[in-house]
Amino acid sequence: MKLQNDTFIRALLREPTPYTPVWLMRQAGRYLSEYRETRGKAGSFLALAKSPALATEVTLQPLDRFPLDAAILFSDILTVPDAMGLGLYFADGEGPRFERPLRDAQAIAKLAAPDPTRELKYVLDAVSEIRRALGGRVPLIGFSGSPYTLACYMVEGGGSDDFRTIKTMLYSEPALLHRILEVNAQAVADYLNAQIEAGAQAVMIFDTWGGNLSHAAFREFSLAYTARVVATLKREHDGVRIPSIVFTKGGGLWLEDIATIGCDAVGLDWTTSLAEARRRTDDRVALQGNLDPMALFSQPAAIKHEVARVLADFGQGSGHVFNLGHGISQFTPPDSVACLVEAVHALSPAYHRDFKGN
Amino acid sequence: MKLQNDTFIRALLREPTPYTPVWLMRQAGRYLSEYRETRGKAGSFLALAKSPALATEVTLQPLDRFPLDAAILFSDILTVPDAMGLGLYFADGEGPRFERPLRDAQAIAKLAAPDPTRELKYVLDAVSEIRRALGGRVPLIGFSGSPYTLACYMVEGGGSDDFRTIKTMLYSEPALLHRILEVNAQAVADYLNAQIEAGAQAVMIFDTWGGNLSHAAFREFSLAYTARVVATLKREHDGVRIPSIVFTKGGGLWLEDIATIGCDAVGLDWTTSLAEARRRTDDRVALQGNLDPMALFSQPAAIKHEVARVLADFGQGSGHVFNLGHGISQFTPPDSVACLVEAVHALSPAYHRDFKGN
Repeated sequence: MKLQNDTFIRALLREPTPYTPVWLMRQAGRYLSEYRETRGKAGSFLALAKSPALATEVTLQPLDRFPLDAAILFSDILTVPDAMGLGLYFADGEGPRFERPLRDAQAIAKLAAPDPTRELKYVLDAVSEIRRALGGRVPLIGFSGSPYTLACYMVEGGGSDDFRTIKTMLYSEPALLHRILEVNAQAVADYLNAQIEAGAQAVMIFDTWGGNLSHAAFREFSLAYTARVVATLKREHDGVRIPSIVFTKGGGLWLEDIATIGCDAVGLDWTTSLAEARRRTDDRVALQGNLDPMALFSQPAAIKHEVARVLADFGQGSGHVFNLGHGISQFTPPDSVACLVEAVHALSPAYHRDFKGN
Repeated sequence: MKLQNDTFIRALLREPTPYTPVWLMRQAGRYLSEYRETRGKAGSFLALAKSPALATEVTLQPLDRFPLDAAILFSDILTVPDAMGLGLYFADGEGPRFERPLRDAQAIAKLAAPDPTRELKYVLDAVSEIRRALGGRVPLIGFSGSPYTLACYMVEGGGSDDFRTIKTMLYSEPALLHRILEVNAQAVADYLNAQIEAGAQAVMIFDTWGGNLSHAAFREFSLAYTARVVATLKREHDGVRIPSIVFTKGGGLWLEDIATIGCDAVGLDWTTSLAEARRRTDDRVALQGNLDPMALFSQPAAIKHEVARVLADFGQGSGHVFNLGHGISQFTPPDSVACLVEAVHALSPAYHRDFKGN
């Protein structure tokens, strides 16, 4: 089925578009009352993520409210380690946790990449069902955590303020961590390729915690393994290009290196200027971002002002996908999102004067 | 009294030194059993910070254990807003909080810089007493939070995950925030100058939260006001140069701008390579940092390896003060600190081959 709106895909490939496409990280989420209702119906976050029907329902909710230019698979970042047998659960009022954190050499030696068509079938089913439900309105983005970000949760056993456990492994027993990362890289590549086979039209790798590493450790323990994943990704499916996006929160300092691993686009948080990022990457990749999610707590005039600033920062031409610099806050007023999307669509055509249509 | 060890001051001024000086952010702190004992004796953290005798005791504790090249005043980052009447307190098991957060226009209009010789006399008394107790062993560093970092606590009323309250003010009512920052800049400058008069031999400004701003907002709301403080600082006291250090956690992307506000040194967290930082600042400032504090949870060989890497990253010549990239963790084994200090002193002379002595 031909896409009715392929602006997002074209922008990732730096092809001309009539305006700047926009979607928001975590756009299907708690800031929407209809999401909270479906989540209540499901009983738990995991039940919601593991039901293809409910995952489809919440994936489409923000698209029914706002004219967004892409959908993103609703799923959890920790499905892969869960499929590896670590026992994902959510403690009340806390973040995700694993019953069996990965810390000793024996368990690490036994770690293996899951077969996504078996152990992660519920995700692939969701991808197929969302594609059917979308009916070609906009493209569907598949995603995974990066090998290092997954390892953070696997070794820490949950979130962390200081990543003391994984960093102790990194500095003291780097070979153990490398072994985990090798398995994770294989698992993430298999998982994303299976999502592509199931219908994902672009893929994004979230390196949420790589920005917490030292500059030297980032290259060795995070970027090297994200690069392996990108190198293994299917570039096409059914004759159509499948673009990839790599987002390292707090990775602005290392942009030149991230831009050279073969991804089509790099996600940026709000600390990096898009103008400087274009110059530093020599326009070799598309850029995605980078409004401060907290700007959505101000009035419409202020939101428009910030949208205008981000668009002007990128400047003329294709290769920009508008987004936040991080996931949307659960406390965001939905009206602010409506205002943002409208402002991007209204103000961005001025930056695509070279667009001649198809 | 002449300093017996002025290596730290000389390095900040980029004068030749025989080795690389080292001190650690939060070196007087909970990782030391003797600190925990004094803290217990004081009854509360605030009682400890407000007693010149006890503040002197804990300031000197790490120097009695390790051959550190500088002492830093033991105090709290929030003494200034406390002196402004916001009512600092520490809730059990939580961080600092203010009884009267600063949010409405009326309260902001009334905000005034305190007179440090009156409302912060206990800090100045501590500075004088520490200088006497040090007897010229090593220099004493005075410090303050940056105007923006203080404003974060003042407006949020405590720590924050997302800085939603201050950022709502920043995007919606920037004039209110500018008013707070103007008062804070005056207050911080007065406070640091009073510390210099009382005997501080170098001063450091901690911009702990500036790194959470967008690149545009950082310049307007954080750096501009830190620059006002630096411009107002006494450069000399009793004919002796008083160097200044500015540390923005997460500010590596903006290093060029930070390096041009007139400070003598820039502190760096572990995400920025010192070699790149030297190149980007054209050796116009000294650099302080930048070992990952989590490296101190590994064995001596790994700690030495990381120390060697940081020293090699900076390379030949003066202008480097060894430090962590953030405050030391309360869980750090003190033996790791002994190992770090020894490694810096043993390995760094090789990077000061041009040193000819005095």
